[in-house]
Amino acid sequence: MQLRSEVTRQKIVSSATRLFSLNGSDGTGVSEICEAAGVSKGAFYHHFPSKQDVFLTILNDWLDQLSSQMQKARLTTRDVPESLIAISGLTDQVFQISKKHYSLFFEFWIQAIRHPAIWQAAIAPYHRFQTWFAALLQNGIDEGSIDPSISPQETSRIMIAMVLGLLLQAFFDPVGAAWGNVTKSGIQSMVAGISRRPL
Amino acid sequence: MQLRSEVTRQKIVSSATRLFSLNGSDGTGVSEICEAAGVSKGAFYHHFPSKQDVFLTILNDWLDQLSSQMQKARLTTRDVPESLIAISGLTDQVFQISKKHYSLFFEFWIQAIRHPAIWQAAIAPYHRFQTWFAALLQNGIDEGSIDPSISPQETSRIMIAMVLGLLLQAFFDPVGAAWGNVTKSGIQSMVAGISRRPL
Repeated sequence: MQLRSEVTRQKIVSSATRLFSLNGSDGTGVSEICEAAGVSKGAFYHHFPSKQDVFLTILNDWLDQLSSQMQKARLTTRDVPESLIAISGLTDQVFQISKKHYSLFFEFWIQAIRHPAIWQAAIAPYHRFQTWFAALLQNGIDEGSIDPSISPQETSRIMIAMVLGLLLQAFFDPVGAAWGNVTKSGIQSMVAGISRRPL
Repeated sequence: MQLRSEVTRQKIVSSATRLFSLNGSDGTGVSEICEAAGVSKGAFYHHFPSKQDVFLTILNDWLDQLSSQMQKARLTTRDVPESLIAISGLTDQVFQISKKHYSLFFEFWIQAIRHPAIWQAAIAPYHRFQTWFAALLQNGIDEGSIDPSISPQETSRIMIAMVLGLLLQAFFDPVGAAWGNVTKSGIQSMVAGISRRPL
């Protein structure tokens, strides 16, 4: 039963992801999600109190995947500059996923502006990433691999900014550059600038 | 007559800016804009073929102001690193204006996703900024103030990314940091990294 329930949940999530991307969340009803997923409304509401909860589930599933890959990059490298370079290698994947779901991301933001509960849930992962990178940079200072004169908080914000900003540009101008590579090289120069050893 | 016409146009633009920010552009009708501005529908359509044109006018007016300030910063400084530092001083102002109009910016993007004409008009200024910064960096290489091994195109994209990404973060987390200062210091470290002389 547990397994069947999980399959139903997954069907709802993947149908909703597709419909939100196509028609926006405002343009997608729970009925349509149910029809596309081949599940009853009862089953839908058993898993998700509202359409917005499906929304947040999609975002969080994706961010969880990204977090565990970052964690893995951290654990399989020798020091913080190496970890950051390895993490910059993940950006290509972020770009590939984002490319398919840009409309969905904008829908998230619009929904977040309009609904305080979505807003709170949407900024939580941002805070998590911000804190995670700041702690990583602090580790680097402690282990002697990162310049101790930098502010870990501020540098974390600037790194996240670079990735977010390149995602936005890739959205404006998808064929203008190899965005994964631009991001990688941007992060690498930043890391070179704050590292206490040559890379 | 010319003057009166300009006053009418300005009334429409400022009423529309306020209403779009409050209720989104989808939630704002031409009738409401006319009522708020105290102008007739005839006068509205004399100035703007559609609501979307008011939209683009607001964005372009603001970007034109920013461009002329960037140009001024360029003309009143000695070399490219100095120009970039002076331009980084404008970011506080970008943050102040953006803070008031975040909803409006997101509306722009959503509208751009849905309407190809808005899309084209919306990415044009992005291309302009991207080209402008790349040319500035090339000037720096030519005058010997910027490291000739950088790619002006790529570095321009990374600089714009940083500002865009910090604007987004400021939106997620308005009180989390002094965003104008974070941006200034981020751009300054980038400039320090690509400059051929100490700043």
